[in-house]
Amino acid sequence: MTDGANVTVRLAGPGDVADILRLIRALATYEFEPDAVEATEESLATSLFSPGAHVHAHVAEVEGRVVGLALWFLNFSTWTGKPGIYLEDFFVDPEIRRGGIGRALFRALAREALARGCARIDWAVLDWNELAMGFYRRIGGARSEGWQPWRLSGPALEALAEAPE
Amino acid sequence: MTDGANVTVRLAGPGDVADILRLIRALATYEFEPDAVEATEESLATSLFSPGAHVHAHVAEVEGRVVGLALWFLNFSTWTGKPGIYLEDFFVDPEIRRGGIGRALFRALAREALARGCARIDWAVLDWNELAMGFYRRIGGARSEGWQPWRLSGPALEALAEAPE
Repeated sequence: MTDGANVTVRLAGPGDVADILRLIRALATYEFEPDAVEATEESLATSLFSPGAHVHAHVAEVEGRVVGLALWFLNFSTWTGKPGIYLEDFFVDPEIRRGGIGRALFRALAREALARGCARIDWAVLDWNELAMGFYRRIGGARSEGWQPWRLSGPALEALAEAPE
Repeated sequence: MTDGANVTVRLAGPGDVADILRLIRALATYEFEPDAVEATEESLATSLFSPGAHVHAHVAEVEGRVVGLALWFLNFSTWTGKPGIYLEDFFVDPEIRRGGIGRALFRALAREALARGCARIDWAVLDWNELAMGFYRRIGGARSEGWQPWRLSGPALEALAEAPE
């Protein structure tokens, strides 16, 4: 536990990939999909830190240890005509939650968003995760009512790509 | 109406911004938000066609007329470690639907996805739009069960950014 005063949030760098992968795996375990993570340190290094990479991350540190992750990329709203931040993964070590770490990470994202002229931050929550929703409400977030996420992947994606003209 | 044989799908270029804005506005009207579109031809030209732009679009043409739009950007999956295509806006002129135009646009996106090593195409549907869902099911899409979209925007976003440490 921490009082939040000792939290440092910064943009992640190439030296953080091991911590980033650890937190991605911890989030997958928390979401009951411990074996879902195919990403490796090498693939993350390429995705986040190669020239022109479109994926970014902020990390939160307490006493020199990385304990929180916000992994994001820019999306776009055709209505506002502005980019936004899409928060793909957000996780804080369960052992040191309630210390203001999540809020400090989200505040850094909010500042990043405004600095980039973004109109909003979007993300998705598993519908059983009331603990996360409580936190998101406290920092001012709200469910985007009326919208359903859909996906095309795997064999169906390949079949459509290979369909005749 | 068309039989689909005369549909051409191509990446959009700077000369398409007027058509792209027209279709964005038509989609907003279809979604009962006709006044929601703040984007302009100028802002779209910057967002889609300036160097390093992260927003892209495919357009569908029939007899030299742009009748369909798929506007997208790359997202990222921390589980697969791969990028994906996020389809932000998808619209075909109602007057010439059922002619294979939507399918041709989606097939082009599927090919774009595989060429880029993407694991999937994601998008969102308004929960009353059964017509769209029927089309998405026919091309192999499925609802991503269990996930709720959330958002932080407007005054709440600014308040968090301005919150003290």
